[in-house]
Amino acid sequence: MNADSAPPTLADLFDAAARIAPYAHATPVLTSRALNADTGAQLYFKAEHLQRVGAFKFRGACNAVFGLDDHSAARGVVTHSSGNHGAALALAAQLRGIPCHVVVPDGAVRAKLAAIAHYGAVLHHCAPTIAAREAMCAQVQADTGGRSVHPYTDPAVIAGQGTAALELLSAQPDLDALVVPLGGGGLAAGTALAMQALAPSCRLYLAEPSGAADGARSFARGVLDHEVVPNTICDGLRGTLGAINFDMLRAADAQVLTVDDAQTLAALRLLWTRSKQLIEPSSATVLAAVQQNRALFEGRKVGVILSGGNVDLDTLPALLASPA
Amino acid sequence: MNADSAPPTLADLFDAAARIAPYAHATPVLTSRALNADTGAQLYFKAEHLQRVGAFKFRGACNAVFGLDDHSAARGVVTHSSGNHGAALALAAQLRGIPCHVVVPDGAVRAKLAAIAHYGAVLHHCAPTIAAREAMCAQVQADTGGRSVHPYTDPAVIAGQGTAALELLSAQPDLDALVVPLGGGGLAAGTALAMQALAPSCRLYLAEPSGAADGARSFARGVLDHEVVPNTICDGLRGTLGAINFDMLRAADAQVLTVDDAQTLAALRLLWTRSKQLIEPSSATVLAAVQQNRALFEGRKVGVILSGGNVDLDTLPALLASPA
Repeated sequence: MNADSAPPTLADLFDAAARIAPYAHATPVLTSRALNADTGAQLYFKAEHLQRVGAFKFRGACNAVFGLDDHSAARGVVTHSSGNHGAALALAAQLRGIPCHVVVPDGAVRAKLAAIAHYGAVLHHCAPTIAAREAMCAQVQADTGGRSVHPYTDPAVIAGQGTAALELLSAQPDLDALVVPLGGGGLAAGTALAMQALAPSCRLYLAEPSGAADGARSFARGVLDHEVVPNTICDGLRGTLGAINFDMLRAADAQVLTVDDAQTLAALRLLWTRSKQLIEPSSATVLAAVQQNRALFEGRKVGVILSGGNVDLDTLPALLASPA
Repeated sequence: MNADSAPPTLADLFDAAARIAPYAHATPVLTSRALNADTGAQLYFKAEHLQRVGAFKFRGACNAVFGLDDHSAARGVVTHSSGNHGAALALAAQLRGIPCHVVVPDGAVRAKLAAIAHYGAVLHHCAPTIAAREAMCAQVQADTGGRSVHPYTDPAVIAGQGTAALELLSAQPDLDALVVPLGGGGLAAGTALAMQALAPSCRLYLAEPSGAADGARSFARGVLDHEVVPNTICDGLRGTLGAINFDMLRAADAQVLTVDDAQTLAALRLLWTRSKQLIEPSSATVLAAVQQNRALFEGRKVGVILSGGNVDLDTLPALLASPA
């Protein structure tokens, strides 16, 4: 969608922070004695599950929507995400008072579609294949002239996601390391940008499910490797790493730490029990990565981004019943 | 245990606030657009699930333990609660460096006993009858000379619990109403005391499970009525209203609002989904009471105390599966 775009700059990052400030929450930074004791590190949790729409995704969507000039904006925005990005784009468009079109595959989770519709977006249903999805997106764009906003490769989205780490590093400038979940790489690349601005000596680690480890494979091979069929409980991290994201993350010397679902689930239960924060599985990968790589983090000040809190309560019992 | 004690005074309340300040968290006050829209009220949630030990109970236990003179304190404290009060008393005693003895019935939930033991308390097992429990408590007190700290009738405990509302009213002095859960009445009576000090025209409502409605029956009859066999998912609210608590609540002109478990469960799911806060069922009674009595609260500023967040994840699937 924006495959040829240049990566966002520091100026884009600071513009994003100013642009979304009237709409997005400045989320709190949480700490926990128990989790510090468990890991031997000093952990600073950026609580993006308390962001609007329940995920950091609102930052990028909001920046993309409010960065459009009035003429483009009037034609609306288009995306094909039926997850948090779809809901985030719908709310951002609603706040600006412009149309939002979301292409959704038949069979998508009804609760997620209801959330997107709740924010006033128009749903366009298509068959659950990539070809059908791309055809429908092209059709909607042709019909409306709307601007397509990719969930993680759009430079405006990346800059917007970077504002979470910008806030965290403003509150805690002396972090030794930052750990963020890795899916498509929007949050990760935005975080790299924020670290470049505020904490150039801080190390960036990317927590990735071993069942969707295209990021780890790409870093190991030095080229993008999408030959992975995702199989993980982390529904927010099934996307494949974007090219622009990969380039930014390699330039930042980021390191991927893979965690398996059992480790993530144990970390999730610990976070629920100790922090009383109802985060979603994707968000627990960061604590699992810290737990599984104690030598990297012990005695350090470590910022972690809790990326979202959209747990489907109907599937939660099955989640808790899975082997940990 | 302290049946003849005089009720705590305003001086006791302010002493409690100063005494526990070095140890207890000043918990945040949370708000939610979605829950305001749902109820038509402006809700201010005092987040006691983020208190130490995961419940407001730490305030009262801490005040009781640190209010002892050195001579009494050296002999330790005794209680028979295997729930949040037991864990709270254990932590308070650990912080003061004195012994804590907890009498627990055979068959008590293992996770709760582990929490109490984690804070260094000595567990004393007895048969699961009131006679056996009282005999064991008397024995432990005789053996140790320890001070018995009742979970909700001890005046120092009531004054300590009142500091939650004191903080809430300091942050939001213009509340029209306060809603707190009603079990034994420690939090409720402490809240009445705080309102007397800071918000005498604010109304006090007590949310009580209809399956443990000894409070509602007592208010209706004008005398304590304990002829209720508790049957509710709200494990923190199964205690029977204490005499000192009942007197304080009647003097404050408090009103009981009963809610059934299905209403509480629906409110619990809404709170989890919207606030991302993993509160326990007892804490959701307050939102259920606001929802079920819309005429009382619509258009008003309403403080509610989220009393605790100690959910047993192993029983959570069964909880979610119960009919709502």
